Amino acid sequence: MKTYSLALIPGDGIGVDVTDAAMEVLGAAAKGRFAFETTSFPWSCEYYLEHGSMMPEDGIETLRGFDAIYLGAVGWPATVPDSVSLHGLLLPIRKAFNQYANIRPHRLLSGVEGPLKAEGFDILCIRENTEGEYSGAGGRVHEGKDNEVAVETSVFTRAGVERILRFGFEQARARRKHLTSVTKSNAQKYSMVFWDEVTRELAAEYPDVTVSHMHIDAMAAKMVMAPQDLDVVVASNLFGDILTDLGAAIQGGLGFAASANINPDRSAPSMFEPVHGSAPDIAGKNIANPIAAIWSVAQMLEHLGEAEASAAVLSAIEAATGKGIGIRPGLNTTQEITAAVIAALEA
Amino acid sequence: MKTYSLALIPGDGIGVDVTDAAMEVLGAAAKGRFAFETTSFPWSCEYYLEHGSMMPEDGIETLRGFDAIYLGAVGWPATVPDSVSLHGLLLPIRKAFNQYANIRPHRLLSGVEGPLKAEGFDILCIRENTEGEYSGAGGRVHEGKDNEVAVETSVFTRAGVERILRFGFEQARARRKHLTSVTKSNAQKYSMVFWDEVTRELAAEYPDVTVSHMHIDAMAAKMVMAPQDLDVVVASNLFGDILTDLGAAIQGGLGFAASANINPDRSAPSMFEPVHGSAPDIAGKNIANPIAAIWSVAQMLEHLGEAEASAAVLSAIEAATGKGIGIRPGLNTTQEITAAVIAALEA
Ligand SMILES: CC(C)[C@H](C(=O)O)[C@@H](O)C(=O)O
Ligand SMILES: CC(C)[C@H](C(=O)O)[C@@H](O)C(=O)O
Repeated sequence: MKTYSLALIPGDGIGVDVTDAAMEVLGAAAKGRFAFETTSFPWSCEYYLEHGSMMPEDGIETLRGFDAIYLGAVGWPATVPDSVSLHGLLLPIRKAFNQYANIRPHRLLSGVEGPLKAEGFDILCIRENTEGEYSGAGGRVHEGKDNEVAVETSVFTRAGVERILRFGFEQARARRKHLTSVTKSNAQKYSMVFWDEVTRELAAEYPDVTVSHMHIDAMAAKMVMAPQDLDVVVASNLFGDILTDLGAAIQGGLGFAASANINPDRSAPSMFEPVHGSAPDIAGKNIANPIAAIWSVAQMLEHLGEAEASAAVLSAIEAATGKGIGIRPGLNTTQEITAAVIAALEA
Repeated sequence: MKTYSLALIPGDGIGVDVTDAAMEVLGAAAKGRFAFETTSFPWSCEYYLEHGSMMPEDGIETLRGFDAIYLGAVGWPATVPDSVSLHGLLLPIRKAFNQYANIRPHRLLSGVEGPLKAEGFDILCIRENTEGEYSGAGGRVHEGKDNEVAVETSVFTRAGVERILRFGFEQARARRKHLTSVTKSNAQKYSMVFWDEVTRELAAEYPDVTVSHMHIDAMAAKMVMAPQDLDVVVASNLFGDILTDLGAAIQGGLGFAASANINPDRSAPSMFEPVHGSAPDIAGKNIANPIAAIWSVAQMLEHLGEAEASAAVLSAIEAATGKGIGIRPGLNTTQEITAAVIAALEA
């Protein structure tokens, strides 16, 4: 039996609640199939307040040896600004390990009612995860003065754009063979025109995939007006960030939105985390929806090659929601939802 | 009787169709109230193909003398790239005339069914219109090579951020006294942290206005999950662009989305234009929905101080849609919808 080593970063707020739930489900899914060893790291805003940094200096090196990383949520803005906590933990991990593909599936789980009248959509969003608008390049001049100027520079490299688009084309090939590339080349004539050019070059290598080019504004509208027309969507760091929260919304809320930060070359561990944040207001109350976190476990299992266990977790989620468990905020406790998924998994 | 001078730029595609409709309605609204003189300019992609530029060199100076500018739509991507047509006409006008506030109302008109289950929302989006992510600053290095890098720099000035936020606070004060400022300061630590700081400074001057800070990703989700919680929304050029297409979507589509590019100091003319584009596929077929264009006329009248005529146009639109006219694509011709609005206006 294979044994996987797993680094656990529950993080802040409901990150802790849903990580507990996710690990219980992982335990049930592993039975008779594989083993895993978890090491938990307390890196969080609390850790920051004590140590002055979100993780130790050798944090990245410590994580490098694991087969996968599982993260609950990071952030506690009342005591640590998000710009510190996220730049000190989540974002450096994504970049250091070249987790350049952030994969987020959007569809309505059985039994879940979304805010749209539309229903039958099944979208896979692929977000570039290491550069672009979140490169962190910029500065402020004449700070605090009347003539202050703040600049923030998006940096797109050919290697960075090519690899995420190629990943998108491959995903499209494995699904319904339709790729939508999202830019804003009518207003951003350097970065986005470049992205469009690379898309056109690569499209020649994937004649079996239909490519649509859309602007981010029109795309946001489309997610709401005609989500059923979309298959695989590929977008930059910022555009993917926005579209995947929108995707979470149309699938019924952030409680259902899973996410995988993938290093497709497998030269370093990938990281799995629900899209939602730490939600300080409901932390520790046993009411957070663990479904996004559990779905992220299914993504992790798929990435590790445990396709059967991954499929079993997904079916178990839908068995629970199909019975009405966890389909609306406040309906069930975190523990009830977790128990329902495990029961389905063991049935 | 006052006479207003109006510069008309029908532009491309359905821009021409809806401008005709809008001007008919303007004529009916003016009767007995005011007069106007229109001068039409053929600046468009067709003009570009003939003259090598979207407008003459003195185009901006020509427009400067008018009381207002009305624009249909610009763009014909099959022959002129959007990055050329928009940077040659629409964007320079917004910038040259300091039309820094782009105002876009989002609510369901009487009789119109949107894609959401939610209904009772009434949002006023204020988009910064002259700088930020669409500053046009950037470049490409090692073009075409493996090591190519494209950069695009967002530029935010204190004066630019202050004036749009101040405008937002004033609008909120005149409505339900709730302002939502949209940034992404957890990932863009120069530009967006700066915007947040300026918001906090100004908030002290408007103690009667409640301010919410939201990230663009969470905000996109909110527009879909709980739009009824929003009143006035203020955002940067890019974020406002995305949110207003999303706003258009939730109000039933781009056929209903009006827009005013306002110079609040009145040091130069303001420009009124529907949010939708030129829609080449349906151009000239008498099927474009002119309601967004007509609503933009109402915004123009309000800006010119003709509050009564403005309100009359808005009521006439709702009288028509309330009877089911123009509420779904393909239901009525452009002319039928226009005639219904005029009939209501004259009733
Ligand atoms: C918290 C934030 C930095 C993060 C991001 O924008 O990447 C989050 O919104 C996400 O979508 O994972
Ligand atoms: C056409 C484009 C440049 C324009 C913009 O982004 O400003 C449009 O999308 C809009 O919203 O007015």
